[in-house]
Amino acid sequence: MSSTQPAADLNVPDLIQKKRNGETHSAAELSALIGGYTRGKVPDYQVAAWLMAVCWRGMTPQETGDLTISMAESGDLLDLSSLPHTVDKHSTGGVGDKTSLVLTPMLAALGLTVAKMSGRGLAHTGGTIDKLESIPGWNAELSDEAFLEQAREVGLALVGQSRNLAPADGLLYALRDVTATVECLPLIASSIMSKKLASGARSIVLDVKVGAGAFMKTVADGEQLARAMALIGQHAGRNVRAVLTDMQAPLGRLAGNSLEVQEAIATLRGQGPEDLHRLCIELAVEALTAAGFSDNARARAESTLHDGSALAKFRAFVAAQGGDPAYIDDPGLLDVAPGRAEVLAETGGFLNSVDALSVGRAVLVLGGGRERKGEAIDHGVGVELLVKPSEAVVAGQPLLRVYHRQERGLERALDLLRSGVGIGATPPDAAPLILGRIG
Amino acid sequence: MSSTQPAADLNVPDLIQKKRNGETHSAAELSALIGGYTRGKVPDYQVAAWLMAVCWRGMTPQETGDLTISMAESGDLLDLSSLPHTVDKHSTGGVGDKTSLVLTPMLAALGLTVAKMSGRGLAHTGGTIDKLESIPGWNAELSDEAFLEQAREVGLALVGQSRNLAPADGLLYALRDVTATVECLPLIASSIMSKKLASGARSIVLDVKVGAGAFMKTVADGEQLARAMALIGQHAGRNVRAVLTDMQAPLGRLAGNSLEVQEAIATLRGQGPEDLHRLCIELAVEALTAAGFSDNARARAESTLHDGSALAKFRAFVAAQGGDPAYIDDPGLLDVAPGRAEVLAETGGFLNSVDALSVGRAVLVLGGGRERKGEAIDHGVGVELLVKPSEAVVAGQPLLRVYHRQERGLERALDLLRSGVGIGATPPDAAPLILGRIG
Repeated sequence: MSSTQPAADLNVPDLIQKKRNGETHSAAELSALIGGYTRGKVPDYQVAAWLMAVCWRGMTPQETGDLTISMAESGDLLDLSSLPHTVDKHSTGGVGDKTSLVLTPMLAALGLTVAKMSGRGLAHTGGTIDKLESIPGWNAELSDEAFLEQAREVGLALVGQSRNLAPADGLLYALRDVTATVECLPLIASSIMSKKLASGARSIVLDVKVGAGAFMKTVADGEQLARAMALIGQHAGRNVRAVLTDMQAPLGRLAGNSLEVQEAIATLRGQGPEDLHRLCIELAVEALTAAGFSDNARARAESTLHDGSALAKFRAFVAAQGGDPAYIDDPGLLDVAPGRAEVLAETGGFLNSVDALSVGRAVLVLGGGRERKGEAIDHGVGVELLVKPSEAVVAGQPLLRVYHRQERGLERALDLLRSGVGIGATPPDAAPLILGRIG
Repeated sequence: MSSTQPAADLNVPDLIQKKRNGETHSAAELSALIGGYTRGKVPDYQVAAWLMAVCWRGMTPQETGDLTISMAESGDLLDLSSLPHTVDKHSTGGVGDKTSLVLTPMLAALGLTVAKMSGRGLAHTGGTIDKLESIPGWNAELSDEAFLEQAREVGLALVGQSRNLAPADGLLYALRDVTATVECLPLIASSIMSKKLASGARSIVLDVKVGAGAFMKTVADGEQLARAMALIGQHAGRNVRAVLTDMQAPLGRLAGNSLEVQEAIATLRGQGPEDLHRLCIELAVEALTAAGFSDNARARAESTLHDGSALAKFRAFVAAQGGDPAYIDDPGLLDVAPGRAEVLAETGGFLNSVDALSVGRAVLVLGGGRERKGEAIDHGVGVELLVKPSEAVVAGQPLLRVYHRQERGLERALDLLRSGVGIGATPPDAAPLILGRIG
């Protein structure tokens, strides 16, 4: 990708009119518009009108790809070309989703290279960097040289988003948020993929969450998004594969930073909860396939969770970034808040639902997440699912356990959790974890 | 109309989303949005996205009416309720359109009251106030008391737009202009009608121009606009009638400020060009009908141009606003630029077209119009059509005469006029002046 200067004769109203008329933008037009916007040469009100015209008329796959490349080119482009078999992973956002903590060392153990920027949590969703910071000493900041060197040596380096990756995406997202233009397939797909393209990996595996707790409410919507993202990757010369996964209830049994690291380590030892274990295997298979190593992929992925190779990679990665490996060897050392409280079943029957959003919000009010960027968080608080959906329960049985610190936010958290629990006379329809695959 | 405060809980993204979804706004929602925008509480970018959503989804007649009322209520509301049979007139814009100079004294002579704010010219269109300022001493500014008093005494008062009429319209128009949201029926109709509602007349007559030289290119588009404006008037309790008229060639034979006053006075004497004379009669009939005096309307309108009554009203109106009536009695005294140049027929045949836009632009480059608000203009320059479309011409015959001052802009004006003339082997299809009526 080369940086393109906007045409000197950029006429923004003409571009808006073109999209309003349902016509197709050229790559040069999109580059001029996005580049001009990022440099402050095109005002918010013109981009807002254009975004609504895009919601109205849509975009061709070619346009969506060109838009995404323009967004990626609006800032730094990471050069990972010196590393072998680079792979990146993205989830569209979930609760209790510690998949990256398990999957990335699995991929490193399988011979792929993960040199990845991860985000911090905001509102009800957690962030991989926050979770890793539960481990004393672990450091999210590496110099460019140290980052590439560690990725080459260990096969795995994870850092915070210190670089100026796809700043156009940040600007556009903030504008979409206040102009009712968030829900729009090409804009959603380009937003996610612009950061992935700028991050430089050759292969990209996407975990598209579907369900009440996710941004995509139906499998059809999730499929459309996954297809759009795969086409963008193709257009930019990357290998993209996507898995659609159910996100009604939280993944695994634990939500909260230290608690999720504990559950991730258990999974790396082959003792994780079934849904998390299975999802990590599926995503590893897709990553191997994307990178061109599909032979015997499932068995090889499974073996990393049983032969200690993924755990060893995780330990080496934590140590390389300053973390104390004693906490990996004995995760019980991790700080977990001492307060305990439980939500009991009000009636007997079958647990039909544990709303992921309610669990995420409960962790937030306990102090384990942040409302605004930059806020400090309590890594020790969280929520444990003592029962998983479809299991039978009796009245009075504990369903959820809260880990709190000095009762901060406890009552609100319990209210949220109670409102998110559904018990029925019959088990719920079994929703498969894997709802589809694209790539 | 009473001023409505925006709801304290105005959520602009929700309003945008509602229109994006094709839902219908309540009057309270539109009032909150437009009021908030006018007071600077709602930013341009949100209104820009909303405007594009309106272009996408349209508006019901009820919504368009409510929007227009909100726009009218954004500033001053003239109270003309103490005056009898008030009537206002609006043209969607033409070249050589001196209709207001003839029609308004006709209406005063017919017993109606015209207490009207008029605009100045911008770009290729002229303005009534500029034309009247060709008359030495005539003053476009009156105090509120003097304005109402003169309207009561003479039946006719015309002033510049000194009041803060529908400021929301000015803000919205400026935003639409740079966001490709100008072409949108409910937005066009509400823009025109908001100023008319704020201007306070009970009856409103609209001259909707149709053709190459007008904003509405087809009769169907013009009819839709006229109907939308009539519904807005109905919604606000006004009597609205509209005439669709052809605007391919300039109206009458003269374009330019002093020249148009001369042609208007000739028309008030019953000696005007046929198209201008006829249009004034048609609009007077509609005004009488709107005001509830349809009996024998055509004959009564005609008589004002033959019995001297309309001319007498015009003379009294000019004198009341400080103008020297000697110029009305002898229009040859008006300052007309002394320079003359002509465009000759390059071939023989029939004059098929004289492009109104080219004539308007020629007057502009001669100095008779302004590119930007506030610029001084030369009232004496202009263009005369020596031949009207469909008349036979021989090669070398003068078609158009330019009145210029020291050759300023002369070559550009001649180029524009030459490019706007079409001569064919056969006469053009005769387009009727009156293309439709709504009301």
